[in-house]
Amino acid sequence: MAKDHRQVQRDRVVVVGAGFGGFQTAQSLSGANADVILIDRNNYSTFTPLIYQVATGQLEPTLVAYPIRTKLRGMKNVRFLQAAVDRIDFDNKLVGTHAGLVPYEYLVIATGTQPSYHGVPGAQEHTFTLKSLQGAIALRDHILCCFEQAAIVKEIEERQRLLTFVIVGGGATGVEVAGALAELLQGAFRRDFSELIGLERIVLVQSASSLLPEFSQQLGNYTHRKLERMGVEVHLNVKMAEVTAASATLSNQQIFNTATVVWAAGIQAAQPDLAQPVKEASKGKLVVRDTLQLMSHPNVYAIGDVAYFERLGKPLSGVAPEALQQGVTTAYNIRRQLKGKLPQPFGYWNKGRLAIVGGYGGVGRIAGIDFGSFGAWIMWLIVHLTYLPGYRNRLFVLLTWIQNYLLGDRAIRQVSSQIRHTASSRGHK
Amino acid sequence: MAKDHRQVQRDRVVVVGAGFGGFQTAQSLSGANADVILIDRNNYSTFTPLIYQVATGQLEPTLVAYPIRTKLRGMKNVRFLQAAVDRIDFDNKLVGTHAGLVPYEYLVIATGTQPSYHGVPGAQEHTFTLKSLQGAIALRDHILCCFEQAAIVKEIEERQRLLTFVIVGGGATGVEVAGALAELLQGAFRRDFSELIGLERIVLVQSASSLLPEFSQQLGNYTHRKLERMGVEVHLNVKMAEVTAASATLSNQQIFNTATVVWAAGIQAAQPDLAQPVKEASKGKLVVRDTLQLMSHPNVYAIGDVAYFERLGKPLSGVAPEALQQGVTTAYNIRRQLKGKLPQPFGYWNKGRLAIVGGYGGVGRIAGIDFGSFGAWIMWLIVHLTYLPGYRNRLFVLLTWIQNYLLGDRAIRQVSSQIRHTASSRGHK
Repeated sequence: MAKDHRQVQRDRVVVVGAGFGGFQTAQSLSGANADVILIDRNNYSTFTPLIYQVATGQLEPTLVAYPIRTKLRGMKNVRFLQAAVDRIDFDNKLVGTHAGLVPYEYLVIATGTQPSYHGVPGAQEHTFTLKSLQGAIALRDHILCCFEQAAIVKEIEERQRLLTFVIVGGGATGVEVAGALAELLQGAFRRDFSELIGLERIVLVQSASSLLPEFSQQLGNYTHRKLERMGVEVHLNVKMAEVTAASATLSNQQIFNTATVVWAAGIQAAQPDLAQPVKEASKGKLVVRDTLQLMSHPNVYAIGDVAYFERLGKPLSGVAPEALQQGVTTAYNIRRQLKGKLPQPFGYWNKGRLAIVGGYGGVGRIAGIDFGSFGAWIMWLIVHLTYLPGYRNRLFVLLTWIQNYLLGDRAIRQVSSQIRHTASSRGHK
Repeated sequence: MAKDHRQVQRDRVVVVGAGFGGFQTAQSLSGANADVILIDRNNYSTFTPLIYQVATGQLEPTLVAYPIRTKLRGMKNVRFLQAAVDRIDFDNKLVGTHAGLVPYEYLVIATGTQPSYHGVPGAQEHTFTLKSLQGAIALRDHILCCFEQAAIVKEIEERQRLLTFVIVGGGATGVEVAGALAELLQGAFRRDFSELIGLERIVLVQSASSLLPEFSQQLGNYTHRKLERMGVEVHLNVKMAEVTAASATLSNQQIFNTATVVWAAGIQAAQPDLAQPVKEASKGKLVVRDTLQLMSHPNVYAIGDVAYFERLGKPLSGVAPEALQQGVTTAYNIRRQLKGKLPQPFGYWNKGRLAIVGGYGGVGRIAGIDFGSFGAWIMWLIVHLTYLPGYRNRLFVLLTWIQNYLLGDRAIRQVSSQIRHTASSRGHK
């Protein structure tokens, strides 16, 4: 890997990031007349739509993460490099990693997103996010530690603080976490901590005037009612003003004493460090042509959440099918370039959107038609099970869901680290 | 929990440690006329016989760990306290924890073992152990990082060092790890890292003149042959002399350049800090009467690996059935004491022993009869599946084993932390 690959005769394609877009690109380049190197800092691809179920004790982390090398078996021209990318140098066609410089002829940037805190004081230091498996595990461990801690302390105020969970952001992630956390509190928590019943509190803070603004107002209202029935306090038209280790303050001055704030209120591009700046849109996204090439560098593509692409005058919404389809197009365009042909424009086929609200409740929009309730919920489960990589993962997730919903219980409640005092001294990213 | 429990009228039994012995004691005290508090620093019980399968990527950690509170559901007089025990004060009948002082009338010490390094320089700093789930996960992540690192470095010596695994100790743990590691290297590793095939090396170091000295010489020889056929180098009659971050030196001066040394060569009692010293046997074990009470304190019991108990003139061998049966007897004796009766002596019913050597190979001794090969292997699988707590765990472990042995593959190969440089800079306990 550290040898001088410039001696190799075939062109080299480097793909940075093995998320939905990056992995799809590498896969679609299998068999192409080029050497492909897929770089990621993890040795697995994360199935991000199910990360929230790791955070809420529903699924084992390994069930939503798939080893990249297993997926690449049989693709002879595709290799994997586990490395953190430090810098990209377009002029010299080099990707700098902690494992050395990797030269390329074609480059695909698919580095995804990172949380955006909108300058809210304390948010970065004192909130949990769901952008990575590590973050989800940290949140799960923290929630379980809060329960155990609350069982020990005698002051009622401290108990209540430990059992108050604030979720910032009323989009799909925030709604899904709130619903899953409510299920956890109504199921396993009540059985395990009967002396604490009644002290728990879940608060969902949304800056817009309804939940799930990407769906219709009607589905937003349905979601609102459903979450409230599950015991979630929904606060609309209000923002988070400040987060400390012990509290969360809203823009309307309301203060919640809490040990747990989950940040699901914004993302920005996880842009790698670029030696030569390129054109950016809002949130640090890299502006691409209709062929997904960078404006200034025809041998460099940017796809998925790190790229800015407009469709029908509006930016893409940042869901997995967009990244997957961009990966297919990027591989197709690189294959054309390798043959001396011109790349073709990307056309997105919108398959629709789905979100889960809680047990037996979901919302969806397919072919412009909105629908909610049980039908959307069961469709969500089927779609995610179908797209989840690996037969073992699919079977185990299916069996776990059946157990969860039949018994109203959660299996994964082991805190992965030994005694921690995080409950009172947070400070996790 | 922090209230003054001396006001409570019923006697208080405190059990320290939720391993096989401690948990069994608490369970057998369910319904007794006493308040029972079970203390452990983890919120789960670990099924230690399967820990090595976590370290070698066979099983998810949660499948061999069971949430303590789930097990305690329905036992109204038993409560759980997640806490680290700092000190035990026999005179004042107090258990000191990071969560405050816990008074007791009866105490059960079931704190198990910790590794014993016999003063070998560097062993504590530079070896991995399999005494906890955290240790097993650290070893698994480290092994996977060594593979990824070896795929990056170009120097052949460094590649070989990263792919050399030294296991110290030829008892059941050492043999099981060596066999499982050989399977990992022959299966998933060869498929994922085809360019590294032939560089891998597994070394098993045993101070005695045969492997598995607790079984017969014949079974030791069988194990030896089987491991060698799987590619493990077995070194008998030799000890580890020194371990550094980059090498392991044997007492015969042989040096192995290695990034991974697994320590399975000795244990000692994990004795809690005692305010008043009590009688100890070798390895820091607490000497108990034939009733399992401490010599000097009739209201304190010590069971499992932390206790020293002789049967037929020999100390117990430290296996799970001993601790389980001691837990039953301890609960029975405490119930007798609560009623003003005298405790009864402990009688151990030896069900036999089993160890697994590698795919389709095992050894066993039941009712004094030694047997090896496929029969012992299948019996090992059945026995461990039967004793594993939780229906979900049993089903998932069974399905995983079927997959492992049918496909010769391993599912759990996701490194749980992001890019680590442990491969060249170890130093993990």
